Amino acid sequence: MTGWSKAKTAQDIRDLVEKGFLMEAGEGISQGGRKPRLLCINRNLGFVVGVDIGATSVDVALADISGSVLQRYSEPADVRQRPEPFLGRCVEIILHLMELQGCRADQILGIGIGVPGPVDFARGVLVAPPLMPDWENFSIRGFVKESFPNAFVVVDNDVNIMALGEQRAGDGINVDHFIFVKIGTGIGAGIVSNGKIHRGSTGCAGDIGHICVDKNGPICRCGNTGCLEAMAAGPAIAEKAMQAALNGSSLLLKNLMNQNGGVLRPEDVNTACREGDQAALEIIRASGQMIGDVLAGLVNFFNPSHIFIGGGIANFGNHLLVSIRRAVLRRSLPLATTHLSINFSRMGPDAGVTGAVALALEYLFVIEDQPTTTI
Amino acid sequence: MTGWSKAKTAQDIRDLVEKGFLMEAGEGISQGGRKPRLLCINRNLGFVVGVDIGATSVDVALADISGSVLQRYSEPADVRQRPEPFLGRCVEIILHLMELQGCRADQILGIGIGVPGPVDFARGVLVAPPLMPDWENFSIRGFVKESFPNAFVVVDNDVNIMALGEQRAGDGINVDHFIFVKIGTGIGAGIVSNGKIHRGSTGCAGDIGHICVDKNGPICRCGNTGCLEAMAAGPAIAEKAMQAALNGSSLLLKNLMNQNGGVLRPEDVNTACREGDQAALEIIRASGQMIGDVLAGLVNFFNPSHIFIGGGIANFGNHLLVSIRRAVLRRSLPLATTHLSINFSRMGPDAGVTGAVALALEYLFVIEDQPTTTI
Repeated sequence: MTGWSKAKTAQDIRDLVEKGFLMEAGEGISQGGRKPRLLCINRNLGFVVGVDIGATSVDVALADISGSVLQRYSEPADVRQRPEPFLGRCVEIILHLMELQGCRADQILGIGIGVPGPVDFARGVLVAPPLMPDWENFSIRGFVKESFPNAFVVVDNDVNIMALGEQRAGDGINVDHFIFVKIGTGIGAGIVSNGKIHRGSTGCAGDIGHICVDKNGPICRCGNTGCLEAMAAGPAIAEKAMQAALNGSSLLLKNLMNQNGGVLRPEDVNTACREGDQAALEIIRASGQMIGDVLAGLVNFFNPSHIFIGGGIANFGNHLLVSIRRAVLRRSLPLATTHLSINFSRMGPDAGVTGAVALALEYLFVIEDQPTTTI
Repeated sequence: MTGWSKAKTAQDIRDLVEKGFLMEAGEGISQGGRKPRLLCINRNLGFVVGVDIGATSVDVALADISGSVLQRYSEPADVRQRPEPFLGRCVEIILHLMELQGCRADQILGIGIGVPGPVDFARGVLVAPPLMPDWENFSIRGFVKESFPNAFVVVDNDVNIMALGEQRAGDGINVDHFIFVKIGTGIGAGIVSNGKIHRGSTGCAGDIGHICVDKNGPICRCGNTGCLEAMAAGPAIAEKAMQAALNGSSLLLKNLMNQNGGVLRPEDVNTACREGDQAALEIIRASGQMIGDVLAGLVNFFNPSHIFIGGGIANFGNHLLVSIRRAVLRRSLPLATTHLSINFSRMGPDAGVTGAVALALEYLFVIEDQPTTTI
């Protein structure tokens, strides 16, 4: 495959074994002559870490360099904090997992980090992130490298890492063209084209939460009016439910609100819907339809074979999914929808952290394609 | 590069030279030893043809297998005809160009054909094409192969071939992520992701003409309401101008209509606009804004570095372009627009036919990636 001579190949392999990158893995089956010696990557070479930062939680996994997760930890968190304390806590969690596994900081070779905002992938920084303004241009890599000097740190959008997770370990294996849609506090998409993550020219592809669904709609965090995110994501769902509770159109939502000390969360709307509340059902259906209307346009444009839906709102079940599907089928062209599958991701909360580990591994053995700035 | 031994390489090259695929091209510069013998692909090996079928015209080019165009011909045409007479005429044109060049039918090795409708790329047929219903599932390859049995025939969407043309010979050279938008009788997009044409899972990516801009808008050929194409493409522009002529809001348009025997074409609206007609200007601006609103969403989703605009309406000049740019800048996220260039394609009517030649060449030397059905 390399086109190298036998002598050069043997010498290079001896070097790699001596340096500990490769190790012998027994003998193979003879093809007539001497039995071949098999080699594999030395699993004890080091470790990689995946960090999935959500708006309200953080997930961390410690894996070996084959990608097998060895330790895993999640806790609630708030990204509206400044980056230093937030990332400081992430480092603490990583150190804790390393202690459990008995590994040293210099053995951490790669760290993949997903963040909920637009990332300039080459520079590894957030640019104008609506959810976490204090993080703008903050060097996440620089901060994390201080604790793990041997690690190559890669930062990407949270939805890109979920798409990567779905591609490596979920139903996205061997799928050439798909869209992973995350619906939670925000709405975003991870895109796979010809089997590769499509990050776009400045790395911010997939920002579908700010596609306009109603020019006369409410003002969004981004400053525009009627963005999908402002009208259909978690906070909008909770807000509409509060209105329904207050204007008397749902007694159940009103009771839930009173139990919660005067507020409603998106989960409460889901609970009410499951108990048969009509107002809650309508709110969820309306969200599904708006998301489906936007996806219909993207299906015409991108023609994916699969759309995977994940994120906190994804467990809202069939009412949401049916509304999304219906809107897409109504507005997309027949050729684009005949073989289109729209489903919840079956990876649940694992998609992000699995993808973050995959992201770290992707850049571990690649020099030329690494994001360009100082690491 | 191949990893083959010297002996095998020399033997294979001798074979290719004997078969006429390669030819010697003199001597190279010595790197110390014997001067290397240079080889190039035998330009006399055969020819390729590019056919760009538009809604109202057909462009044909005959090129050598390096892609240099040798003969070129265009004429008005109407795709609403049945495919047999239309393609029969295309074959006549090809035979005419071959005669001018002095080449035989068995020397035609590849034919690339662009058609204005959704193409199932693997099968090479149109699927539910709104402009040309009689072509549905018609085997374009089969028909053309009858006259050129040695040619590998590839059929693609007209806008994909324009994108390919822009990538091979226009401002899209070395651009990783761009969108080519064709605005004419219809509106469609060709997409390049990571340097490759993105055709999507069933080959119909880029069908942006049927993205909804107004749920209460007019009914489109596709059966839905308020599609971009129904509201902003050539026929919609002409229709609005007729209204302006009839309701007295533009005397100039009324005069043009009377001169034209009671109808207005999109070109007339452009003429009126250039002469300072306010109603015509408003019509063009409104189209630009609607196209820009849709592109704004696609910029958020796809994050291209360039948008090239071509097609019959593209020569409408700056009023259209400014409206498109303004709408995109207003609705897209800052990170996606900072380095975004939106311009008319400078290839004009050459984009399509250049791309059709490139498409033919792309599949000429590739066996495994060829579209799958009988050729």
